[in-house]
Amino acid sequence: MVKGVFCLMIIVLIKDAEPEQIQALYASLDSYGVTISDIPSASATVWCVGGDLSSIDIEWVRSNSIVDAVHHIRKPYPIASRSFHPHDTIVEVAGIPIGQGHVCVIAGPCSVESEQQILAIAQQVKQSGASLLRGGAFKPRTSPYAFQGLQAQGLSHLLQAKKATGLPIVTELTSLEHLDLYADVDVIQVGARNMQNFEMLKQLGRCDKPILLKRGMASTLEELLMSAEYILAGGNHRVILCERGIRTYQGITRNTLDLSAVPLLKHDSHLPVLVDPSHAAGIPWLMEPLSQAAIAVGADGLMLEVHNDPENALCDGAQSLTCEKFDDIMQKVKAYAQFASKVI
Amino acid sequence: MVKGVFCLMIIVLIKDAEPEQIQALYASLDSYGVTISDIPSASATVWCVGGDLSSIDIEWVRSNSIVDAVHHIRKPYPIASRSFHPHDTIVEVAGIPIGQGHVCVIAGPCSVESEQQILAIAQQVKQSGASLLRGGAFKPRTSPYAFQGLQAQGLSHLLQAKKATGLPIVTELTSLEHLDLYADVDVIQVGARNMQNFEMLKQLGRCDKPILLKRGMASTLEELLMSAEYILAGGNHRVILCERGIRTYQGITRNTLDLSAVPLLKHDSHLPVLVDPSHAAGIPWLMEPLSQAAIAVGADGLMLEVHNDPENALCDGAQSLTCEKFDDIMQKVKAYAQFASKVI
Amino acid sequence: MVKGVFCLMIIVLIKDAEPEQIQALYASLDSYGVTISDIPSASATVWCVGGDLSSIDIEWVRSNSIVDAVHHIRKPYPIASRSFHPHDTIVEVAGIPIGQGHVCVIAGPCSVESEQQILAIAQQVKQSGASLLRGGAFKPRTSPYAFQGLQAQGLSHLLQAKKATGLPIVTELTSLEHLDLYADVDVIQVGARNMQNFEMLKQLGRCDKPILLKRGMASTLEELLMSAEYILAGGNHRVILCERGIRTYQGITRNTLDLSAVPLLKHDSHLPVLVDPSHAAGIPWLMEPLSQAAIAVGADGLMLEVHNDPENALCDGAQSLTCEKFDDIMQKVKAYAQFASKVI
Amino acid sequence: MVKGVFCLMIIVLIKDAEPEQIQALYASLDSYGVTISDIPSASATVWCVGGDLSSIDIEWVRSNSIVDAVHHIRKPYPIASRSFHPHDTIVEVAGIPIGQGHVCVIAGPCSVESEQQILAIAQQVKQSGASLLRGGAFKPRTSPYAFQGLQAQGLSHLLQAKKATGLPIVTELTSLEHLDLYADVDVIQVGARNMQNFEMLKQLGRCDKPILLKRGMASTLEELLMSAEYILAGGNHRVILCERGIRTYQGITRNTLDLSAVPLLKHDSHLPVLVDPSHAAGIPWLMEPLSQAAIAVGADGLMLEVHNDPENALCDGAQSLTCEKFDDIMQKVKAYAQFASKVI
Repeated sequence: MVKGVFCLMIIVLIKDAEPEQIQALYASLDSYGVTISDIPSASATVWCVGGDLSSIDIEWVRSNSIVDAVHHIRKPYPIASRSFHPHDTIVEVAGIPIGQGHVCVIAGPCSVESEQQILAIAQQVKQSGASLLRGGAFKPRTSPYAFQGLQAQGLSHLLQAKKATGLPIVTELTSLEHLDLYADVDVIQVGARNMQNFEMLKQLGRCDKPILLKRGMASTLEELLMSAEYILAGGNHRVILCERGIRTYQGITRNTLDLSAVPLLKHDSHLPVLVDPSHAAGIPWLMEPLSQAAIAVGADGLMLEVHNDPENALCDGAQSLTCEKFDDIMQKVKAYAQFASKVI
Repeated sequence: MVKGVFCLMIIVLIKDAEPEQIQALYASLDSYGVTISDIPSASATVWCVGGDLSSIDIEWVRSNSIVDAVHHIRKPYPIASRSFHPHDTIVEVAGIPIGQGHVCVIAGPCSVESEQQILAIAQQVKQSGASLLRGGAFKPRTSPYAFQGLQAQGLSHLLQAKKATGLPIVTELTSLEHLDLYADVDVIQVGARNMQNFEMLKQLGRCDKPILLKRGMASTLEELLMSAEYILAGGNHRVILCERGIRTYQGITRNTLDLSAVPLLKHDSHLPVLVDPSHAAGIPWLMEPLSQAAIAVGADGLMLEVHNDPENALCDGAQSLTCEKFDDIMQKVKAYAQFASKVI
Repeated sequence: MVKGVFCLMIIVLIKDAEPEQIQALYASLDSYGVTISDIPSASATVWCVGGDLSSIDIEWVRSNSIVDAVHHIRKPYPIASRSFHPHDTIVEVAGIPIGQGHVCVIAGPCSVESEQQILAIAQQVKQSGASLLRGGAFKPRTSPYAFQGLQAQGLSHLLQAKKATGLPIVTELTSLEHLDLYADVDVIQVGARNMQNFEMLKQLGRCDKPILLKRGMASTLEELLMSAEYILAGGNHRVILCERGIRTYQGITRNTLDLSAVPLLKHDSHLPVLVDPSHAAGIPWLMEPLSQAAIAVGADGLMLEVHNDPENALCDGAQSLTCEKFDDIMQKVKAYAQFASKVI
Repeated sequence: MVKGVFCLMIIVLIKDAEPEQIQALYASLDSYGVTISDIPSASATVWCVGGDLSSIDIEWVRSNSIVDAVHHIRKPYPIASRSFHPHDTIVEVAGIPIGQGHVCVIAGPCSVESEQQILAIAQQVKQSGASLLRGGAFKPRTSPYAFQGLQAQGLSHLLQAKKATGLPIVTELTSLEHLDLYADVDVIQVGARNMQNFEMLKQLGRCDKPILLKRGMASTLEELLMSAEYILAGGNHRVILCERGIRTYQGITRNTLDLSAVPLLKHDSHLPVLVDPSHAAGIPWLMEPLSQAAIAVGADGLMLEVHNDPENALCDGAQSLTCEKFDDIMQKVKAYAQFASKVI
């Protein structure tokens, strides 16, 4: 019978452990039905063991000759936690570093609407200095009657734009059923509404692509880090967090951008943290001050909605920047990044 | 090229329309790439047409000989709306009516833990007067290291309990990949975290089972009704709504139960509305006053967590009622239901 | 120098203590600059001593011959707390009991607009069964240009209505400067915006009138009880609490009525708790279900806005009930109160 | 009988109007019982007339020979609004400009605890570059048993520190009864809990001192500007706004700092806007990133809690900066201010 004791054990192996010894210990632990995840570590093999540990005798583990140390811990997100990985993680996307010391700007339209549109925008945001191109192909829309995205067709337009400009692409996954279509996508985005779609997170933990995980609209930072932990525990260590505003009583902006989340997340975790002011505020003229503030508060980059024709956008046009306004903002962001001694 | 104009048209056909005529009109509309959903109506065929209607000439529709009336509307959730379906909908589950004039109590543990456990609880809640049995097999848990449910095994225990007691069962779906396992489940629950998992909602719109749709933790009532509309627009008209508390600054209870949501939802929609005080409050001694208030405010029923051994529950034990306390509450709920002239 | 140690000590005296002994002990404690408040107790003199207790030796207190017991406590609101006063408090207003076993309905217009108006409404709500009359004379308005109430004139109209109908009156105080005008008012209301106007609370603690204390729009229950404690600690033990909705992201109703607050407050405190659905919801047709739910959840009464001509009301007309609708609701409330075995 | 029509009329007089003509028109308008406030304008006399305007014929006003133009308007806060005062207002405090183009830092302890303490802190924050000294004498405390401030004694210590260092002082007013004691205070602070204490705001509108108005803990920006309008409408045009965090479901920080409020307020209003990260976050190590972000988002200054001995502070010690840490932050803030081309 399964017991509910929720527990975590960190096992640090000695450096000279033989592969067969490691495999044998792994198998013994595995037979208890627990979760065993690797914690990235330069110096040694470190495992995070979670689940019902009530039948595992810690002394038995400690006595194993290849075990250097065993800790029982209470941190609910050991792999995401800075305690176990003190240095900032840099997630590389097609050679572009995201994290510590760099400022990365992801720009593009809410929705891919045509090959022409995404190509034109891609060329312009590239010229202005964006590092990655975003664009929605499968769109999660509140209404079943609203435009749901160009779907597979949209993905193929995005890939054309990547080919034409060399910009790596970021796009949202709304269902695991579409995962096969994402083979050439550079970063898979998990949207706010799926932040706690745990089955999706588990699957993405087994996938070999960077994941951009957006904060849910009423999620705590602990919940966000726990969702990141789902991906990390599956073995995928390339997770990028993204603050995009939370729902409050305040109604002028769509959401309330929580910039304190950036230093708080970076204090507890080594993962890179981006800020998406477009979804938070939904008002184009707020993008400049909020982007500046995001860099000043310590964010590792920005995600901005840019459209070449916001008035006729199929989705979220009202919150999109024109390419010209985006270019202005990029100049400000570059200046702030350099002032903060970051590479952009 | 797809345009983004989001629009709804309601088409009422004449009573004597021939099937071929109906089919021909349907095909013409369909060729525009719009969504056509049936609105349940006793007296005539009524369609809700959504999407980019810019190329459809309303006069062309009106001039069709089988069209009785055409309306352009702004209600974002026409099928869920009371405007288009003035009478309360009663959703039948294995002969048990949920909705107008009835009070339905769904009870059971947060998680199925063993065949014994679910059988014992099922027998006791049945004896106390519950109409349906709930129990989680696939559990959405904030932490990847927490007990994730007995999964397929759990479903099979639930089905045993159904067989033994005759109680229809309600259980949560966390991924479309598991849908095949739910063939004998009576009501599929969409949890708060999946309320805006639109791909799941679309699929459930094509499924022949009642859906219990829980409000997201920071969702507006309009968003809840829009999510219901996804299921309804797919052709599945058996949707039951459930208020389960919203996230606020208040921290004594897990969430703040929003009882005003019940009359507000019933004012705008014809769908039945249940209340889940267990997840809202998370404090067993609050279940009695909140259950009474839910009935007094007009809810069509309750969903309550009951465990035969809360202290050793694998999940959410602290918020579960003992079977004895549940029996007490059922007596109160019955009295309130009868006082409100409802059948229980 | 003042130290910041915040601490509470409860001192229970023996029953036969001589007045001079009590006075002597009181004076000794007082010389430490602490707050000494009486806790109502049938059986003995009980003091709550608060402030910087670092220089008071608890053993010295305990050794005093008239001291029966001394406790250091952590409850931040000892006098409001049920731990120190296990039985429900009944606050009497002109012979009308508010609290345990009774349901009290306070009704009337948002604003007193003329003698005629308040008289007409007073007569009608009395006939329908209201126990007290409410009406605003000094109105706290968000805009400096909005109608601020008839002020002193309004109070005098209210007193006329009291004289004519015999209904005790409840009206809000917005500034201590007006306190002298409230001599014949039966219950002084502290509005949501003044719940943490501590100087006002302190003054009302020294006043010999029941206080109706409304919850602030984003206050926790602990903060509400702490504000009650300000009044109680000053010696005024006639405090009535009132839930009136909290501010959330939800925007259909003005505020979100938090009915769970009623059993939670009554669990921690012995004070009576009323519910004001008018300010919470702001929608007249919600008053009936919310009033029923308030009684079913255990409230000691209701506060409802009633106007004889809502369409022409100077303030909050849209949320007021007509006298006819109020009469309907009173019938329902009476039935629910009797069903719950309460006197109304 | 008073009517409730809430209305605003803006009357612009011709430049050459004679004082007697102006006085005559003023008296005529005044006889209708309306509010007449001056709107600061370099070029002409402009009045904002509010209240029940139903008996004032706009044509009669327009036909007056000294009236240049009359507008009926809907902006609920005309004097605070940028529409009627397009340029940024600079509030001068003892020669120090607050607003457009300047960054002002107000620093000091939560509470004045002794003459020594406030003197020591004043000297240190001055040396680090603070422009004004803050310190609480009358403290609004949630608990009646907590340290309530040194009160009059505290004010006198503050004034000593002002004398010794030359720093102008800012301190909170908690009751109008204490106003006489504030004669030598430079800026009167209205705390979050009194933002809607309208009687206090009215009185401060008639007082000749700059007012620092903090946003209420769950106030909208419109409500904040309406409260500012109370002061402005009374004739006091020296109002400084202050964002200090709002209450949300998020629980790591005391409140959620809403930095979007800064550009939003500055878009709608010409008043200066400061940011108080200390009360918003309550965590000293967050002060540096949040202060930088506040400058980058466009704030006109900061308000920071600094204590020479945070561990032994009588109030809010945990959220205070040490003088050393404050000095570090000032260096960063100066660099950011210069980078943003502002004078500090």
